[in-house]
Amino acid sequence: MTRIAICAPSTPITRDVAERVSALAATEFPGLKLQFHEQCFVEEGHFAGPDAVRLAALLDCANDPQVDVVWFAKGGYGANRIAVQALSAMNGAARDKAYLGYSDTGYLLAGLYREGIGQPVHAPMPVDIRREGGEDAVERALAWLAHDTRGLEPSLVGEPSVAFNLMTLAMLCGTDLMPDLSGHVVMVEEVAEHLYAVDRLFFHVTQHLRGIAGLRLGRISAVPENDRPFGTGAEEIARDWCARSGIPFLGSADIGHDAANRIVPFGLARTPARS
Amino acid sequence: MTRIAICAPSTPITRDVAERVSALAATEFPGLKLQFHEQCFVEEGHFAGPDAVRLAALLDCANDPQVDVVWFAKGGYGANRIAVQALSAMNGAARDKAYLGYSDTGYLLAGLYREGIGQPVHAPMPVDIRREGGEDAVERALAWLAHDTRGLEPSLVGEPSVAFNLMTLAMLCGTDLMPDLSGHVVMVEEVAEHLYAVDRLFFHVTQHLRGIAGLRLGRISAVPENDRPFGTGAEEIARDWCARSGIPFLGSADIGHDAANRIVPFGLARTPARS
Repeated sequence: MTRIAICAPSTPITRDVAERVSALAATEFPGLKLQFHEQCFVEEGHFAGPDAVRLAALLDCANDPQVDVVWFAKGGYGANRIAVQALSAMNGAARDKAYLGYSDTGYLLAGLYREGIGQPVHAPMPVDIRREGGEDAVERALAWLAHDTRGLEPSLVGEPSVAFNLMTLAMLCGTDLMPDLSGHVVMVEEVAEHLYAVDRLFFHVTQHLRGIAGLRLGRISAVPENDRPFGTGAEEIARDWCARSGIPFLGSADIGHDAANRIVPFGLARTPARS
Repeated sequence: MTRIAICAPSTPITRDVAERVSALAATEFPGLKLQFHEQCFVEEGHFAGPDAVRLAALLDCANDPQVDVVWFAKGGYGANRIAVQALSAMNGAARDKAYLGYSDTGYLLAGLYREGIGQPVHAPMPVDIRREGGEDAVERALAWLAHDTRGLEPSLVGEPSVAFNLMTLAMLCGTDLMPDLSGHVVMVEEVAEHLYAVDRLFFHVTQHLRGIAGLRLGRISAVPENDRPFGTGAEEIARDWCARSGIPFLGSADIGHDAANRIVPFGLARTPARS
């Protein structure tokens, strides 16, 4: 039995999300046991509770020796506000776990990877069940936890990899949460940003990523209409800034803010340890 | 006679802006001579011409020994794409000038300051004449160039200062354009960003600004409505992140994306050398 504890380090989910994900898991993955922390449903302003409440819930899950996996319920914004404190309060039990999420929860995945705590994994989250085709996304994450590797991002081969939302990675650069990504394939995706903002983010991140093995571009989706066209597309933007910084552009990555978002275990790809 | 060359390193202005600013200068500041470079009116996609065209125009202005001041016509986005090349191609004449602008042109002000080239100045731009009360903004910049110091940001005292748009500063951090701001008062302002994005930007910049003398908060204006309130205001956000990073929060700064935007010469405040 693999025990999966779910908390919301950024913004809350609703109970129907938890019910639908729990029902799906119970039917299709009898070897997985899901526990939604009550904090997932707390709302305060923008966040799933105040920083102290989100931090406590994350530590409840991470430091519980009975728990094998911590699954982040949803992104949004806020994980960066508790990440440093969370990492410094994690115990030995936290080191034996996988941590799954993406988007804003990338701040935690980055910090965990930097500190060598557990196995951070870019993967769909419970909230994805609300997307069109979202059951497939949730199943992909659960199947990977049940040792089915078909959901892995297909380009993963010999080199260590990471995957981030582009804005999240830009905000991570140079901070106490940023891991050393030398020699890594770095995959990025973005949603709901203008192309000029994507260009600006690539300007920033490529200067911080010198020494990586290469960059792969996930989907840049839901780009808002601007008052005029930017003039080039997302791939041309990524290629341009990679060329300027001497970073190999390696092509596309099958990740994004959508139901097709694939799994990228940070470091070298592997299935979670059997428990 | 002070000769002011105007170019557009980011996005274009229209001819009516140039005409109105020229008329105002001719009437009120007979000691100033304005020259709008034709590149100010070029449009290509998002930009005031391709990178090469914007770069060439900037160097036409900066490297001309007959020119005393380079005034950036408008922000938008794009100055970061040509800044490194511009700095490396600037000649001795470029070192004797003041450079005025704000918002996206902050990439150039930062790079100039880093390289010790001329006098970078956060100041209103020609495009500001289109704002309500915009003539006051344009007059403020021109008056400063005519040795009237009343438009200076009022908190400027003994310590070296800089002023930036918050997003621009965030994107500058850790790049080849970022100056050493140790011991400086850093003023920031923002427009049209959600408060969660402002929080995220402060998370990023405060980690890069350790060692500054302190931070002052300009106006955070035109904040879009979000699907829910953030929960705190801009000043509380700034105070929080300053406290977390050990940066003294010094109060407000009289800068912003508006007609009241005041002047901040980078480094120690002074009027331009008489020419």
